[in-house]
Amino acid sequence: MALSRDTMVIAGPAVPPRRRARTLWPLPALERALIARMLRSLGDVPITAVLPDGEEIGPRGIVPVARVVFRDARAVFGLAGLVPELRFGDAYAEGRIEVEGDLVAFLEAVFAAPAPRGPYTAVADWWRSLRRGRNSLRRARAHIAHHYDLGNDFYARWLDREMVYTCAYFPHPEATLEEAQQAKMAHVARKLRLRPGEQVIEAGCGWGALALYLARHHGVRVRAFNISREQIAWARERAQAEGLAGQVEFVEDDYRNVVGSCDAFVSVGMLEHVGPEHYGDLRRVIDRVLSPDGRGLLHFIGRNRPMCFSAFAERRIFPGAHAPALSEVMTILEPADLSVLDVENLRLHYARTLEHWLERFERAGDMVRSRYGERFLRMWRLYLSGSIAGFRTGNLQLFQILFARGRSNRVPWTRADLYAAA
Amino acid sequence: MALSRDTMVIAGPAVPPRRRARTLWPLPALERALIARMLRSLGDVPITAVLPDGEEIGPRGIVPVARVVFRDARAVFGLAGLVPELRFGDAYAEGRIEVEGDLVAFLEAVFAAPAPRGPYTAVADWWRSLRRGRNSLRRARAHIAHHYDLGNDFYARWLDREMVYTCAYFPHPEATLEEAQQAKMAHVARKLRLRPGEQVIEAGCGWGALALYLARHHGVRVRAFNISREQIAWARERAQAEGLAGQVEFVEDDYRNVVGSCDAFVSVGMLEHVGPEHYGDLRRVIDRVLSPDGRGLLHFIGRNRPMCFSAFAERRIFPGAHAPALSEVMTILEPADLSVLDVENLRLHYARTLEHWLERFERAGDMVRSRYGERFLRMWRLYLSGSIAGFRTGNLQLFQILFARGRSNRVPWTRADLYAAA
Repeated sequence: MALSRDTMVIAGPAVPPRRRARTLWPLPALERALIARMLRSLGDVPITAVLPDGEEIGPRGIVPVARVVFRDARAVFGLAGLVPELRFGDAYAEGRIEVEGDLVAFLEAVFAAPAPRGPYTAVADWWRSLRRGRNSLRRARAHIAHHYDLGNDFYARWLDREMVYTCAYFPHPEATLEEAQQAKMAHVARKLRLRPGEQVIEAGCGWGALALYLARHHGVRVRAFNISREQIAWARERAQAEGLAGQVEFVEDDYRNVVGSCDAFVSVGMLEHVGPEHYGDLRRVIDRVLSPDGRGLLHFIGRNRPMCFSAFAERRIFPGAHAPALSEVMTILEPADLSVLDVENLRLHYARTLEHWLERFERAGDMVRSRYGERFLRMWRLYLSGSIAGFRTGNLQLFQILFARGRSNRVPWTRADLYAAA
Repeated sequence: MALSRDTMVIAGPAVPPRRRARTLWPLPALERALIARMLRSLGDVPITAVLPDGEEIGPRGIVPVARVVFRDARAVFGLAGLVPELRFGDAYAEGRIEVEGDLVAFLEAVFAAPAPRGPYTAVADWWRSLRRGRNSLRRARAHIAHHYDLGNDFYARWLDREMVYTCAYFPHPEATLEEAQQAKMAHVARKLRLRPGEQVIEAGCGWGALALYLARHHGVRVRAFNISREQIAWARERAQAEGLAGQVEFVEDDYRNVVGSCDAFVSVGMLEHVGPEHYGDLRRVIDRVLSPDGRGLLHFIGRNRPMCFSAFAERRIFPGAHAPALSEVMTILEPADLSVLDVENLRLHYARTLEHWLERFERAGDMVRSRYGERFLRMWRLYLSGSIAGFRTGNLQLFQILFARGRSNRVPWTRADLYAAA
C-alpha cells in the first residue's frame, strides 16, 4: 500500500522557492527524492518530513502525528544505507534529526508500516549477525558493563523502588509501576510453584529484587548470578541490610559457569544477552543443574519470527543483544527433552512498563543531561520511546516460558492456581 | 544405565532344561540373547519376558509390573528390525505376544526407559518420514476414512455423549468425562474470547460438538470443515435436531479448501493429520481467512522434540499422522507474523481422558470383537493403552496454542478471565 508519487506534496516550503530555483547544486532534489521514496515505502504513514532547506513533504490530507526535521544532508542520506535505524538513531542523538510532536507516536507509525522483508533485509541481517559476533565470556562482560554499570543512582531515578529493570505485570492497566513489579515477581514465583526450602538458581539477577523476593516470600534459598559489578554490589548490600544474606547468595559470574543443582531455574531478562550462538551453552547449564522434578522459567524479549535486534538498540544500547523467536528458543529446550508447560506473551505489559520508565526518565532529564550529556539523554529517550513503540506495534514480544523435564509428572494440573485470589 | 549381563537371570524355565540341552537348534539361545539385550537396552525395567520355549528372563530382585509372553520366534525377532514398535503391535494384535498383568504399566515402563537417540534412530526416522509421504487431498481422505469412518455407533460406545474425540480438560482429576469434555469446550471458547455474531472457522470438526457448543453458548456463526463422511453426516443431523443448522454449517471438505473470512480460527485435534510437508498450506489458509483482529487456536498432540510418530500408531491406527514439536509448529505461525499469545500443555489431561475411553472401550469389548474381530480389539486396546502410557511418561504432549496477528492489539490483557468463576 505504498503512496503513489502524486500523493507526496510540498506542504509549504519554509525557504522561498526563488532561492531553490537559482541553485545548480542538486542536493535538495536528491534529498527530496530520497525522503519521498522512504515515506512511500513506509506506506500511508501520518508523518511530515522537513528537509534541510525547509521544504516539507508528507502525505496529502492526513494530520501528521509528528514532523521529523532533518537538519543536514548527512541525516538524510544516512537513511539510505544498510543500517538506517542506526543512522537515524545517531542523527537523532546528535540533534541532526529532530522529531516535533509525539516521539512515541512517530515511531509507532514507522514500526506499524508494512515492512517488506526481501533479499536486501536478509543480506543486512546476515551482515549484522556476523558483525554482532559471539558473546564470549570476556565480550559478555564488556557488553553488560556498557549498559548496566552506568551508575546505580542513575537507574534509581527512573526504575521502581526495588530496581526491577524488566517487564512488569499489571493485574490491571492502571496499577502503579511499584504494584506491577511486585505482581510480576509474584506471578513468576507462582508459575514456578516454589516450596519452602527449595533451591533456586537465577541467571542474570539485575539488582537482586527477584532473588530477595523469592527468599522472603517463599522461603527458598537462591544462588543468583550476574556479571554486572555495580548490580551485584548493590544486591549484596540489600541482602545484608534485609537480613537475607544467609538465604541468598549473589555470585559475580557468567551463566556459563553456573554449577550445583536446583529445584527451580529462573532467568528474567537475560536471554536477550546470550545470543543464539550460545543457546547450546545455556541448555547444557540448565540440563546440568535442574533436578528431575525441577521447573524452569525464561522471561525475555522475543520476536514473532527470527530477525536481528534493532541495529540502533544493538549497537548503542544493548551491545551483543538478540531477541529470539520461539523457534530459536526451542533450540535451547528441545534437544534436552525439556517440556514446555506454559508460554505467556506479555508485550502490552512491557509497553506499559516502559511508559512509566520514560515518564520518570524525562522527569530526571536535568540530572541525566548534566551527568551524561545531551547526546546520551536523547539516545536513551529514543531507546525508551522506540521500545514502547516496538511493544505496542507487535514488533517486540515479551515471552514467559515455563518448562520442566520431559519425564517429570510433578507438573501443575491446571493454571487456575496462578489466578486464585491471594 | 543398562543392566549388566549378569543381572539377567533365568527366573525359572517352564520347559525342563533337559530338552533344551538335547537340541542342536540354536533358536532358543538366539531368542534369549535378543530379548536379554533388549531388556538391557531399556535399562532397569520391571518387566519379565517369557520366551517361546517357556524360559523366563528379567531383572533380578524387582517385582515385575507385567510378564510379556512371546508365543513364537517371529514375535521375538520382529523386535530386531527397523520398526520394533510396529512389529510388537502386530504380534500383540495377532496374539503372538501376550502381556500378562497391567498393559498400561508395562508400556509405561518401556516408554519411561531412557531411549538413546543415535544414528540408527535417525536413519529409521528418515526412512519412516519418507515412507509416510505427503497427505495429498486424495490420500488425506483415505487416511481419515480409515480411522474416523469405522462406524459412528462404535465410537458412541466409548466416547462421551457428545462424541468429543480429543483431549478433555479436567478442572480437577475426579471430574467425569462428560464434565471434562464440556469444560474443554468452555476453555477453548474462553481462550478465543468470542463475541456474539462473530464468524468462526473450524478445521477438522469431528462429530461437530465444539461447533455446536460455540454457536449455542457464544452466539457465533460457525463453518466447520471435515473430510470424514460419517462424522459430517452425524454432525449435520445434530445441527438439524438442535435447531442450529442456520448458525452452523458443516462442510465436507479439506482444510486446504477453506475460504471466506473469520474472527476466530480453531482446530482441535486436526494438526496431527496435516503432516509437516503441508504446514505451509495450513499457514496460507489461516493467513487468508483470519481477520485483522482475529484469534486462532491450535490444539494438537505434540512432542518435546521433532521425531516420527509411533510406527504402530502411524501404520495401524492413524495413517499419515505426525505429532509435531513446537519448533515445527512455529513454521506455521512465524512466516505469517502470527503472534503466540498463550501455550498450554495438557498432557496429563489426555492421559486421564484416555483412561476413561479405555475403560468404556473394554466394557464394549464383546460388541467390538463380534463386529471387528479379536485382532481389531487387541490392536485398539494397545493403541489406547499406549497413548495413556505416552502421555503419562511425557513421550506425548498436548499443546493448545492461542495466537493472533502480529499487529493486533485486541489481545487479552491477562489470562485471569479464563479462570474467573463462571
